Amino acid sequence: MASLRVTPRALNHYSATFRPRLLRPRCQPRFPAKQTRWSSATTEPHQPAADGTTHGAPSSQKEIRFTSESYPNIKRDVRFGELSEKDVQYFKGLLGTESAVIDGISQDATDDLEPFNSDWMRKYKGHTKLVVKPGSTAEVSKILRYCNENMLAVVPQGGNSGLVGGSVPVFDEIVINMSRMNKIRDFDEVSGTLVVDAGCILEVVDHFLAEKSHIFPLDLGAKGSCHIGGNVATNAGGLRLLRYGSLHGNVLGIEAVLPDGTIMDDLSRLRKNNTGYDIKQLFIGGEGTIGIITGVSILCPQRSKATNVAFFGLESFDKVQQAFRAAKGRLSEILSAFELMDGQSQDLVHTVTHKKRPLEGQYPFYCLIETSGSNPDHDSEKLESFLEHVMGEEIVSDGVLAQDETQIQSLWSWREGIPECLGHWGGVYKYDLSIPLPELYQLVEDTRERLKSAGLVGDDEKYPVVGVVGYGHMGDSNLHLNVATRRFDKEVEEQLEPFVYEWIAKRNGSISAEHGLGLAKKPYIGYSRSETMIRLMKQIKDLYDPKGIMNPYKYI
Amino acid sequence: MASLRVTPRALNHYSATFRPRLLRPRCQPRFPAKQTRWSSATTEPHQPAADGTTHGAPSSQKEIRFTSESYPNIKRDVRFGELSEKDVQYFKGLLGTESAVIDGISQDATDDLEPFNSDWMRKYKGHTKLVVKPGSTAEVSKILRYCNENMLAVVPQGGNSGLVGGSVPVFDEIVINMSRMNKIRDFDEVSGTLVVDAGCILEVVDHFLAEKSHIFPLDLGAKGSCHIGGNVATNAGGLRLLRYGSLHGNVLGIEAVLPDGTIMDDLSRLRKNNTGYDIKQLFIGGEGTIGIITGVSILCPQRSKATNVAFFGLESFDKVQQAFRAAKGRLSEILSAFELMDGQSQDLVHTVTHKKRPLEGQYPFYCLIETSGSNPDHDSEKLESFLEHVMGEEIVSDGVLAQDETQIQSLWSWREGIPECLGHWGGVYKYDLSIPLPELYQLVEDTRERLKSAGLVGDDEKYPVVGVVGYGHMGDSNLHLNVATRRFDKEVEEQLEPFVYEWIAKRNGSISAEHGLGLAKKPYIGYSRSETMIRLMKQIKDLYDPKGIMNPYKYI
Repeated sequence: MASLRVTPRALNHYSATFRPRLLRPRCQPRFPAKQTRWSSATTEPHQPAADGTTHGAPSSQKEIRFTSESYPNIKRDVRFGELSEKDVQYFKGLLGTESAVIDGISQDATDDLEPFNSDWMRKYKGHTKLVVKPGSTAEVSKILRYCNENMLAVVPQGGNSGLVGGSVPVFDEIVINMSRMNKIRDFDEVSGTLVVDAGCILEVVDHFLAEKSHIFPLDLGAKGSCHIGGNVATNAGGLRLLRYGSLHGNVLGIEAVLPDGTIMDDLSRLRKNNTGYDIKQLFIGGEGTIGIITGVSILCPQRSKATNVAFFGLESFDKVQQAFRAAKGRLSEILSAFELMDGQSQDLVHTVTHKKRPLEGQYPFYCLIETSGSNPDHDSEKLESFLEHVMGEEIVSDGVLAQDETQIQSLWSWREGIPECLGHWGGVYKYDLSIPLPELYQLVEDTRERLKSAGLVGDDEKYPVVGVVGYGHMGDSNLHLNVATRRFDKEVEEQLEPFVYEWIAKRNGSISAEHGLGLAKKPYIGYSRSETMIRLMKQIKDLYDPKGIMNPYKYI
Repeated sequence: MASLRVTPRALNHYSATFRPRLLRPRCQPRFPAKQTRWSSATTEPHQPAADGTTHGAPSSQKEIRFTSESYPNIKRDVRFGELSEKDVQYFKGLLGTESAVIDGISQDATDDLEPFNSDWMRKYKGHTKLVVKPGSTAEVSKILRYCNENMLAVVPQGGNSGLVGGSVPVFDEIVINMSRMNKIRDFDEVSGTLVVDAGCILEVVDHFLAEKSHIFPLDLGAKGSCHIGGNVATNAGGLRLLRYGSLHGNVLGIEAVLPDGTIMDDLSRLRKNNTGYDIKQLFIGGEGTIGIITGVSILCPQRSKATNVAFFGLESFDKVQQAFRAAKGRLSEILSAFELMDGQSQDLVHTVTHKKRPLEGQYPFYCLIETSGSNPDHDSEKLESFLEHVMGEEIVSDGVLAQDETQIQSLWSWREGIPECLGHWGGVYKYDLSIPLPELYQLVEDTRERLKSAGLVGDDEKYPVVGVVGYGHMGDSNLHLNVATRRFDKEVEEQLEPFVYEWIAKRNGSISAEHGLGLAKKPYIGYSRSETMIRLMKQIKDLYDPKGIMNPYKYI
């Protein structure tokens, strides 16, 4: 193989900092926390504005506002029954063990109910007085049938790690928490087919698979708490989507309980099964509004033996697109992540963390590229060929290549640290958007220009906006547009909305790429879906949940 | 890299026949014809038995029986209107051009209608007197609205290359042929997102993509005639599924027209879009029973630069499974096909073709392994490492590696030639089944034993059965069980059915892995789906097509 043909400065940099030819990629680095999540380690989550954006001064652990107060326009549906002690007795009798029911009806259980009433971001809080924890699909069926017959509203709850308020009640809906259904039912090592209870925790499952040299085809920052059932119900995207595709392709079967108690026994282990409508697909991304997923069958790929990470500076978004195209062509089957970070996002990370930047110069754009493959030598060679191309053609201006897992983690931290650092000054307006790739970054520029023209952005305290940044899963056309602010200012919000949503609608983008609708995005679905599609969705909702007891006030 | 550690005989064989280290893999071999299709080159397709299996003496081009005669139990639904000249005038006025309507109402057009009334296998034949060829989604909408209002049944028709009689009428249903909607609407080279009319021919699209170094994520023997819309409507599997996954994961958006004329405008180009139920999934594999697909948006991968093919002999199905596991582990991201052929299937191919066998010895099992990757050297090295393992561990007994495209084609011919050769003696009972991998081959053994015990299998003319063979897409757990016969014998059929279906049902397999239900498999869905699932499917059918005009008498 020819030696690297790179620009002198870049060559120096490469030589001085890392030795690409001495790469020792390690197995399976721990993937970073999902970049769109607040980290509670250094910044407290903030109160949501009424529109669901995260904003406001840091709040203490005691100050979560009730969703019913944050969203005063949402009224409790009077058709729903009020829970009585008789209902509680039914559930206690059904579930047997005391620990399977948290009863706030016949006693005060506020503290015990708190973790089920509020989300981990501390943005949403409900008024439930009853949590039930079924231990089997049959129990879920009996619970739902009872609730449906008695018009009792329910909220299915997995790991409660969602970002749009979908997994906690708004009023007094019964929480059906799936954590007791946590068995790995079956794994076939030849086909890679895994069957699990919905309440299995992603990380537990992935550890189980690691012992068998397989991986779960999905990875998330919340892996330590999120449930497989919740992942499937919200059609979680995450970091492996570029490589392994979406859950719509990987999920082979679903066992779910419909509101009337019907058990939908579609837990196929088969990769191919063309015998009728693929109804389970409606439950993937259905966010618990037409039934509760109780079991999942999913195809799991072999675990890669090698991982490499490279980090680049680029002069324009056009160059970023060229680099992405080159990565697809030259890294091809081993490309497992292509992440975009703009210069402003990296400046803010640097300002907050004071860490030494990975590159000496500063650039308007940065990319993080990860490869995962079965042969470390081959992967390194492919990466070198890619580097030779993108540096020789001056597509990238500079770059570094991680030499070990510590460096892999260090490079990832410049990507994963963004959301945390953005919260340093105050609240952040966060948008999770899909945009056709050629226009992906234009939204950030347009938004920045708009806020600057309105005199809202600046370096000192008199300006409400600290900065407008863009980053995200470039490989999936998924942009995270974030506006970091010092304080709440009505004018900022008025400049942003409906501007951002209208901008997305004009490009046929998505106002929620991977987070779902939940409570937060419900009002904005019309920007991404036509009236026809919304009508067809409501048809589906009415078909499966005619009484509307499933996860009310949310989704569509 | 260490030199190959192989058994002496195998080493000799490798040395004598091919030189693994001198491999010169070529770009993109033409994939073989789908193995489950009859080739009309040497054997005529046969008349279907009443149950939809292919059987009987070869028929001439003039002798296709009407489906209404082969399936006398199916009666025309009297609720459907009879076509009148007034209806024809409406369609002529709507579609404008003369060539867009084939009118057998106001004139005799039997010959012109023939290709639309009968399928390519010449197994099914309808009585339609009207074919309409819309040129736009708006025209499809107006056609369906008119038909729905006037209770006129329709059959959506793509390339008419299906295997279960789904794309031709049974009685006088109007054929809506999509061939005029054949424009490639858009392709984005950075994201790989392609948007096409439903009537685009797969091969045309794949050639278009080849020029842009991409491939369509699906390949079929019928690629020269099948339409993308039909591929999606039947959830076609094909040869690339092992590598690129199913259409449920790759299709990003669908434009379809519902029976009432509603245009479902869900033609998203986005890889991620979590804004509501993924309704388009119902149309993937819906076989034209709830609407007509008019446009498809799909994610297309980069085209691989290198392809290798190896062919092995193995002593047991257990060894085949070990080889598959090794291929997954060592070929990993470059594995693009893992095909199984049993010894009997290869014996029959040899008997018919007299071609020199790829291996000197004979084995109970053979595998064909294909790799596709971005770096020919790396792929060869991976394949060598795999060979070293499977020969060193005596997982495979012997093997050859193709050195150029001619050899690649030659090896594939031992896989793709099976269906054609099976038809050499007479009719063939063909089953397309998904079975959990560990038991995949057991069905062949059980079926063979069953027919042998009944005294039906033998080498001379007095036995109706020539042989029972198994082959298929091992990587997808997809078995093709074929019973080659000399003549129709009621006892053979009685031994096979419902035995095969019951065997499948006991293992939660699928009675139609990739071919769909159509007319042929409709009666057997209960062997693969529960009553609950069938009820839920009928709900969906009733929701979208309450008058039942879409592709009647088929599916569920």
